[in-house]
Amino acid sequence: MKQEKEKIVLAYSGGLDTSVAIAWLKNKGYDVIACCIDVGEGKDLEAIKAKGSQVGAYASVVIDAKEDFAENFVLPALQSNAMYEQEYPLVSALSRPLIVQKLVAVAKEYGATAIAHGCTGKGNDQVRFEAGIHALAPDMKIEDPIRDWHWSREEEIDYAKKNGIPVPITMESPYSIDENLWGRANECGILEDPWASAPEDAYDRTNPIEKTPDTPEIMEIQFAHGKPVALNGEAMPLAELIMKLDKIAGKHGIGRIDHVENRLVGIKSREIYECPAATVLLKAHKDLEDLTLEREAAHFKPVVELKMANLIYNGLWYSPLMKAIQAFIKETQKDVNGTVRVKLFKGNVVCEGRKSPNSLYDKNLATYTSADEFDQEAAGGFIKLWELPDKVYAQVQANAAKNQSEPSVKGETISAD
Amino acid sequence: MKQEKEKIVLAYSGGLDTSVAIAWLKNKGYDVIACCIDVGEGKDLEAIKAKGSQVGAYASVVIDAKEDFAENFVLPALQSNAMYEQEYPLVSALSRPLIVQKLVAVAKEYGATAIAHGCTGKGNDQVRFEAGIHALAPDMKIEDPIRDWHWSREEEIDYAKKNGIPVPITMESPYSIDENLWGRANECGILEDPWASAPEDAYDRTNPIEKTPDTPEIMEIQFAHGKPVALNGEAMPLAELIMKLDKIAGKHGIGRIDHVENRLVGIKSREIYECPAATVLLKAHKDLEDLTLEREAAHFKPVVELKMANLIYNGLWYSPLMKAIQAFIKETQKDVNGTVRVKLFKGNVVCEGRKSPNSLYDKNLATYTSADEFDQEAAGGFIKLWELPDKVYAQVQANAAKNQSEPSVKGETISAD
Amino acid sequence: MKQEKEKIVLAYSGGLDTSVAIAWLKNKGYDVIACCIDVGEGKDLEAIKAKGSQVGAYASVVIDAKEDFAENFVLPALQSNAMYEQEYPLVSALSRPLIVQKLVAVAKEYGATAIAHGCTGKGNDQVRFEAGIHALAPDMKIEDPIRDWHWSREEEIDYAKKNGIPVPITMESPYSIDENLWGRANECGILEDPWASAPEDAYDRTNPIEKTPDTPEIMEIQFAHGKPVALNGEAMPLAELIMKLDKIAGKHGIGRIDHVENRLVGIKSREIYECPAATVLLKAHKDLEDLTLEREAAHFKPVVELKMANLIYNGLWYSPLMKAIQAFIKETQKDVNGTVRVKLFKGNVVCEGRKSPNSLYDKNLATYTSADEFDQEAAGGFIKLWELPDKVYAQVQANAAKNQSEPSVKGETISAD
Amino acid sequence: MKQEKEKIVLAYSGGLDTSVAIAWLKNKGYDVIACCIDVGEGKDLEAIKAKGSQVGAYASVVIDAKEDFAENFVLPALQSNAMYEQEYPLVSALSRPLIVQKLVAVAKEYGATAIAHGCTGKGNDQVRFEAGIHALAPDMKIEDPIRDWHWSREEEIDYAKKNGIPVPITMESPYSIDENLWGRANECGILEDPWASAPEDAYDRTNPIEKTPDTPEIMEIQFAHGKPVALNGEAMPLAELIMKLDKIAGKHGIGRIDHVENRLVGIKSREIYECPAATVLLKAHKDLEDLTLEREAAHFKPVVELKMANLIYNGLWYSPLMKAIQAFIKETQKDVNGTVRVKLFKGNVVCEGRKSPNSLYDKNLATYTSADEFDQEAAGGFIKLWELPDKVYAQVQANAAKNQSEPSVKGETISAD
Repeated sequence: MKQEKEKIVLAYSGGLDTSVAIAWLKNKGYDVIACCIDVGEGKDLEAIKAKGSQVGAYASVVIDAKEDFAENFVLPALQSNAMYEQEYPLVSALSRPLIVQKLVAVAKEYGATAIAHGCTGKGNDQVRFEAGIHALAPDMKIEDPIRDWHWSREEEIDYAKKNGIPVPITMESPYSIDENLWGRANECGILEDPWASAPEDAYDRTNPIEKTPDTPEIMEIQFAHGKPVALNGEAMPLAELIMKLDKIAGKHGIGRIDHVENRLVGIKSREIYECPAATVLLKAHKDLEDLTLEREAAHFKPVVELKMANLIYNGLWYSPLMKAIQAFIKETQKDVNGTVRVKLFKGNVVCEGRKSPNSLYDKNLATYTSADEFDQEAAGGFIKLWELPDKVYAQVQANAAKNQSEPSVKGETISAD
Repeated sequence: MKQEKEKIVLAYSGGLDTSVAIAWLKNKGYDVIACCIDVGEGKDLEAIKAKGSQVGAYASVVIDAKEDFAENFVLPALQSNAMYEQEYPLVSALSRPLIVQKLVAVAKEYGATAIAHGCTGKGNDQVRFEAGIHALAPDMKIEDPIRDWHWSREEEIDYAKKNGIPVPITMESPYSIDENLWGRANECGILEDPWASAPEDAYDRTNPIEKTPDTPEIMEIQFAHGKPVALNGEAMPLAELIMKLDKIAGKHGIGRIDHVENRLVGIKSREIYECPAATVLLKAHKDLEDLTLEREAAHFKPVVELKMANLIYNGLWYSPLMKAIQAFIKETQKDVNGTVRVKLFKGNVVCEGRKSPNSLYDKNLATYTSADEFDQEAAGGFIKLWELPDKVYAQVQANAAKNQSEPSVKGETISAD
Repeated sequence: MKQEKEKIVLAYSGGLDTSVAIAWLKNKGYDVIACCIDVGEGKDLEAIKAKGSQVGAYASVVIDAKEDFAENFVLPALQSNAMYEQEYPLVSALSRPLIVQKLVAVAKEYGATAIAHGCTGKGNDQVRFEAGIHALAPDMKIEDPIRDWHWSREEEIDYAKKNGIPVPITMESPYSIDENLWGRANECGILEDPWASAPEDAYDRTNPIEKTPDTPEIMEIQFAHGKPVALNGEAMPLAELIMKLDKIAGKHGIGRIDHVENRLVGIKSREIYECPAATVLLKAHKDLEDLTLEREAAHFKPVVELKMANLIYNGLWYSPLMKAIQAFIKETQKDVNGTVRVKLFKGNVVCEGRKSPNSLYDKNLATYTSADEFDQEAAGGFIKLWELPDKVYAQVQANAAKNQSEPSVKGETISAD
Repeated sequence: MKQEKEKIVLAYSGGLDTSVAIAWLKNKGYDVIACCIDVGEGKDLEAIKAKGSQVGAYASVVIDAKEDFAENFVLPALQSNAMYEQEYPLVSALSRPLIVQKLVAVAKEYGATAIAHGCTGKGNDQVRFEAGIHALAPDMKIEDPIRDWHWSREEEIDYAKKNGIPVPITMESPYSIDENLWGRANECGILEDPWASAPEDAYDRTNPIEKTPDTPEIMEIQFAHGKPVALNGEAMPLAELIMKLDKIAGKHGIGRIDHVENRLVGIKSREIYECPAATVLLKAHKDLEDLTLEREAAHFKPVVELKMANLIYNGLWYSPLMKAIQAFIKETQKDVNGTVRVKLFKGNVVCEGRKSPNSLYDKNLATYTSADEFDQEAAGGFIKLWELPDKVYAQVQANAAKNQSEPSVKGETISAD
């Protein structure tokens, strides 16, 4: 009777590395379930499914997760204005927990005992994959072929040929790219010199400003509970909205980010991101929050957001703290309803107007006209108590200065330093 | 023998309100020392000095404080990337503590017992003036004529005419404007509808994007310890650098900000800011920090910066906490040396390159080429410990779920909610 | 037909001040609904109800709110380990929002248009009452008789006699006291000298350590989702549990707090608190969190807790931020289940043991015995990446020191300061 | 000509492990410089020096670092009220950076290229040693014999005997202990069960409460700039002050801490600490800060302190962020001058009184007597602006509730979740 093989689920992209990984894992004794997940990078899922089988997968699974990704991963990030180091809207970092969730689900479905990913040994993604997998399935075995096989490019191609893996003839890109509907990340090659400008071919989803239209595009974005629900009055699912807006904003040159960032693994790296839709939505969302969040909430939320962005970047999506922070964020979004009018033009997103049934802006309080309802008499009292701690401090300082300047013990001055 | 009158120092702008205030304070029995301070708004100090005397001031003092303002107020804000509510570079809020300092100094020089300012009763500036004055001179008496006289525009003009104050014939601006070398703030009028676009005449220091040059301007900005010290290799004092850069960036349409903000006095207001130089310098400075700040410092500094921005906005410049935060910020800036290359174009500031003798970016660690010195083996160990808390958490959760789901006392389930 | 009078709800304690207030408000033209709310200070509600009517109230209402107070106000504070300035468990500050809620409900029931409270003009409570009332009923009129009538003690007694209010003959307490089931606050008199020891008569709910039992009391406290649900295995409602524990802990001298604190109104005051049960429960709860909270949650929660404590102290219970923070806290408490064994002895609460079905302590990982399952090999890799940012920093510093020490422009050294 | 051997500095304690390490490192080809540093654990430095030589060290160095430790490591921690997870005063964590500094200095003096420590592979100390060494000497080679040799106790003793290392005959302690003048840490053995009470023999520096004196000890502690400078008026160096106070406080049973904590390496461990002097000084210092820190400083400092404690615990003493935080802390301590009177009794530290030339407590503002100088009229105005954001919020909520409850697009209700 034939001994059943151990099954492994591989995060499969259809590219050379993960195709070779299928062979490598088979040779290691696994039945490989190739699993390709579309998060909006425009993959041909059917072709990838076929290729997975063709290069030796025991099973080949493809999943269209665009709407799931938008609703459950991008949206919480948008609602928390999540920007790693105030600059990067967390493109790849957001897709990892979704991919991990699907891989674990497929593993359970097929009775697989292991999951493999194709991350290198110096990036953040290996951490995000492995920490994510173990947060969902703590006993899952993990294989990381690329980190393990230590091959040069030539050795890899050699291995591919020996194992019947088709090797692409076209020139390899000098870049290492990851993308999804929330943006596109690019590193390597010439970008590794942070003094050098990013060349134009490093970009794909945005026009250079020189080639953008000479007419601005005015759009109205409607939000319900902090979620974009319509463009120019047309309601649509979030993934669709993002992808549609991405094309328009990209055409206007919006969303290029050039960032030297701190990786979780302890090094700095220089990254080129393109996030047209993310840039527009993050700006519009914040602008609507400015109108609808009460002051204390508006001032404390950024502290929580900083933590949220770090948790996402650091692969801790499935931590208990993330759940608590999401509960916080969700509560803040209840009143974030309304419409923001943005102008997209020559790389700029300008918020020109915003309105909301929950607007806390009160013209009758804010106006300098005769409609003024603000109690100016109250200001005097407010100032007296507001300034009181520092006024007392100043008085005490003045008195202390008049007396001896240094603390002493029994009349002898004591130096503290 | 003539009884000497009580002296008061008035923050004098040369405009109608503060000119009327001179008369009003005189009628209240004061000798008025009109004091006009230039923080870069392009005032004709000599003309204002003359006017102060002409409309009845006991003494008329003018102070060019541009360099002082840049070095001692703008610079700490820049070094702490200070943005109120992540959007407003704190233009007016920064000049108030300097003005207050000068007013108190003039009061001491002239033996004045009171200081007067011309703020309205519903803005932040009254708090900044009064809290600032009392933090420096806790016993100083304060007069706020505008808040006190409760006049309509017509009554004020009437009072002016009776007291020989010249009334300008030209149409009054529909806006309320404050500016200095770090930017220009505009409110009132049509701007009081946050859904309405700001009209073009609300702007003064920036071109609309439609009228900006079609050729980008590439500039190199050099920083020493977080301070901009040179433009394109030409060293210059900070105030001069800011004013020069402001003109260039304004020409390229950079620095328009449309912000619904939370005032300290408890209301939301809609403000239009123009901060060409500030926008460029804040971006370049942050970019250089990205290259030179160690990760822990880079990640904690924003928490301190949020507080710093609020202290500035809320008129607490002279609080002991501000001193402590400035000590923190100063220490972080030691390594922020180097050059940032920015491209100014069509409203955009793009940081294209950055270099530093203190750069913590290490190509040999970051590269994906054969020069790689990063120890990829270490990553496996790192991940194991990094993920451990959440992995243990997942195991415990799984076990807890297998057993009874709700806590109980002596076998009886207890509901906590 | 008789014109109906305007109705006002008065927070009524049964004491002289608020009894006089009934007369004063009547004389101002109101029908007064006296409303007394018991939050665990041991009031004789029936006697107070009768007295309210007797001294002229239009209606006299009493509410036993102990369980409501414990569940909905004390519990969220306990779960967030709320301590103002790390020392004060927020006794009075917690009861105010409950009282406010009841007053507003009674006002709605009776069709009252105003609410009156008896706070002085220099404490926090006036802010908590008024801000709380307006957060629930923004158009409610507020009367504050004590702040308004400006009477000396003699004048007040005079007014009482004229209006038939019984004046107590017994010597007045030199202290100003407020208490509820979560603790007792005491200020004024001799306590106003922060260098003077608080005299023994300032305390009421705790034995001095000298008079505590010589035998410790060992208790087991069981928590479900962060809520104390049983003492020594006996389940009981929260208010009852707190009051029972309070007696025991007070007997052992636990919970005396002597605190110089920053009031919201801008001054420092010296307060003496007694919080026997609160002290025990806060310690036990934290100890159980130590066992059950994952590290990231454990390390970020204190940042949120600091904000929570300030919101409570500052009268912002009904702010939107409070709701968001409570959502955060509630989520963190899901796993805070288990039992803590405390020893109460001579003023000390010692947590001697803790256990939980959600314990994240794993003896097999922590042990130094042969049962060790911790992967010590992984530590080497972890350290390499953990230390990497500072190691690179040190290398760069060393190199920078070798080269010129000051930044320069075109070869000329530039001074930044 | 004889080839010179590579030199290594070993952190030497005089115990079995590090004595064996001398032999092990010699056998690996090193000349070993044994270096023993006294941070107040009461070592017999001369005996240890002799033993180091006796068991084969190339050189044996001993350093009395008590005062250095107190001034430069303990003091910044005290001034920042540093408590890891709000409970542990960072005993061992504080001594590591000092030890590291000395080891690196000795290495430089002797021209050593490597440093060895004797930490296990599952604790925090290995990280603190290695991260610390590389932050000071990034190219230093590190040896960790204990983590490397993988021996059982028997194998180690065997190796010791073979290499002429004396093996102690006395029963080994079941505990793993580390101590210095700031406290004593104890783990292992029975303590590994967090439900079990710590047995009395786990303690060494504190009396059980049952055996403490029946008479309290009243002490006055004087601080200058946040530094304890005198006990009962007698000035003394900090290390001496701490050690003297430690004995007295320990006699009174003060400073026992039983803590389940989160280690940096990802596991929870249960620790027993004894910190008599630290407990007293931390309490007294905070009490003096309550009197002398202005409110904003008092409320933001804890956020910085949380970070500071984590940096210390996590071995990042020599990070740039630590320098910036220390600059912040130092600035806050300028006004922390004065005297605190504490009562030490039966395990309790009670702060009974505090006074300061910089006291911000103003009796004339705080009093409820006729000396009152507080402007109660101002309170009304203060409240109006303080409550305004939440009052407007309540009004808007009420209006929004009256109108349709859910956001809609073109009349159709849209669900956001």
